[in-house]
Amino acid sequence: MKAWCITESGGPDVLKCVDQPDPTPGPQDILVNVRAVGLNRADLLQRMGLYPAPPGAISDVPGLEYAGEIAAVGPAVQGYKAGDRVMGLIGGGAYAEKLVVHERETIPVPEGMDWAQAGATPEAFLTAYRAIFLEGGLQPGQWCLVRAATSGIGLAAVQLVRAFAGFSLGTSRNRERLEKVKPHGLDVALVDGEGELPKEVMRHTGLGAHVILDLVGGNGHLNENLQCLRPEGRQIVVGLMAGRDDQVNMGLMLGKRATVRAMTMRSLPQERRMEMAQLFLDRLLPHFQRGNLKPVVDTVLPFDQAPEAHRLMEQGSHTGKIVLTT
Amino acid sequence: MKAWCITESGGPDVLKCVDQPDPTPGPQDILVNVRAVGLNRADLLQRMGLYPAPPGAISDVPGLEYAGEIAAVGPAVQGYKAGDRVMGLIGGGAYAEKLVVHERETIPVPEGMDWAQAGATPEAFLTAYRAIFLEGGLQPGQWCLVRAATSGIGLAAVQLVRAFAGFSLGTSRNRERLEKVKPHGLDVALVDGEGELPKEVMRHTGLGAHVILDLVGGNGHLNENLQCLRPEGRQIVVGLMAGRDDQVNMGLMLGKRATVRAMTMRSLPQERRMEMAQLFLDRLLPHFQRGNLKPVVDTVLPFDQAPEAHRLMEQGSHTGKIVLTT
Repeated sequence: MKAWCITESGGPDVLKCVDQPDPTPGPQDILVNVRAVGLNRADLLQRMGLYPAPPGAISDVPGLEYAGEIAAVGPAVQGYKAGDRVMGLIGGGAYAEKLVVHERETIPVPEGMDWAQAGATPEAFLTAYRAIFLEGGLQPGQWCLVRAATSGIGLAAVQLVRAFAGFSLGTSRNRERLEKVKPHGLDVALVDGEGELPKEVMRHTGLGAHVILDLVGGNGHLNENLQCLRPEGRQIVVGLMAGRDDQVNMGLMLGKRATVRAMTMRSLPQERRMEMAQLFLDRLLPHFQRGNLKPVVDTVLPFDQAPEAHRLMEQGSHTGKIVLTT
Repeated sequence: MKAWCITESGGPDVLKCVDQPDPTPGPQDILVNVRAVGLNRADLLQRMGLYPAPPGAISDVPGLEYAGEIAAVGPAVQGYKAGDRVMGLIGGGAYAEKLVVHERETIPVPEGMDWAQAGATPEAFLTAYRAIFLEGGLQPGQWCLVRAATSGIGLAAVQLVRAFAGFSLGTSRNRERLEKVKPHGLDVALVDGEGELPKEVMRHTGLGAHVILDLVGGNGHLNENLQCLRPEGRQIVVGLMAGRDDQVNMGLMLGKRATVRAMTMRSLPQERRMEMAQLFLDRLLPHFQRGNLKPVVDTVLPFDQAPEAHRLMEQGSHTGKIVLTT
């Protein structure tokens, strides 16, 4: 099979398409013919040598989510057969024509979803779901501030908050791209730099946001976000697009009894990925089937254009997911 | 009755002992003749004008915990009668000869506890219990790092961790005072400045502390603490003795999927204080009765020496609680 290997740390052109032996499924595993791969910022960081693969994951082939057809199943597999359409999260190695996963960590592709949409679904929706609802504890009727809302995770977040009876505020530096988020369920659009964010958040929410989904991170954003939280509010950090380091006013945290929690999906051990896949089946799939949730695909490129896809993501002008399809 | 009033912001001598009308209990309230008042750092901050009383609390009389005899009960009170010995948390106003509380927010004084011990119990044990177990989620067999361990809350924390089958590491700048903590159940004593704290914590715990009880706060301590956490570890901030502001490496937080949560007891609304009092009855009182938990009183001063007691706390050479008794 072909796979995109990170041959050395660097720009998009360090990705090389190489021949590799097909992986072999164990008794409870399935072998997937990959049809689509969703891109994530973690792929770029891994390529640059800034974010090595977690222990146990394929280390030189990036890719955290896939969709594809089952080519073969191990003898102990219960729930799937060859030909089934599946998608899921993986610790690495999705930029390949084939991959092997345990049957409990994969998810059936919802009816009516094409390959690109399926490849764009697992990471965005499971990350946003886990951050906002499992870690952040957002309840119906509560406010979630999404920073920033135009990313794949941000667009999934806005849909999930609406589907689960919450209210969303979303930020972006770009008004035009933020407008594109509104039809997906964004309640309040706030352009960065237009007005003071904490004041705007208070104006709409009263006491502040219950949960902040933070993809922006440091470089001055942390104290600003803390000012947007209501007492006992929770900020869940899943990305650091603006930087890693920041100042923090712990007095502000104490005054609000605030929580800042960081989470990643990629570093989860296999049993936790399995758990997330089962939660998807139980809680998210019904909403996909009813049309309340839908992946937003910005650009689809052929599998052989992985470096080009990385360049596109680095430009940062997309709204929604970038996907490679075979 | 006499009460210590904060007449203006400033040093210990802005506290003035004045005559005030006795408070009147409502139907579900009890009137307490205060016999002991535990001091807290929040009292000093409030006196300095840095930490105003929460909404609804008595604003000019400090004091967050009391022990005393019931002088009278409202007509709807079910569980107490005049003469009963009680103790508890209050949003403010404990530096007084009498106070009124709802019956659900008070706690019977355990058998064998004298007044000074009872006055030294509620804030230290409820703060440590809530931080480590309710907010931090420490489980039997897990490690809690207590920074710093020689304070009233720190000493309560060390006892609670041992009583609830966890293991503790405690820090202090002062070896002599840290040694005094060991007999209360401290498993590992780490003197600040002797060796690198994260290395020492890893040496004893393997992957790091599951929970950090943080009384120290900022000024360089936050990133050091994050380095001491294991993956998915939780740091609970309850004090800022070393300062309010700090740098934070959010990349380190993401790498560990770490949580930093701040909490205070004083700002809790009445229904949450009631809940904490009921949790004390249910979960802590049995361990006091068995001798597993015991307040550590450093110094007892008479009620009329409140300014002197503040000066003593500001010197910071105590190990355990400072208490005023009437």
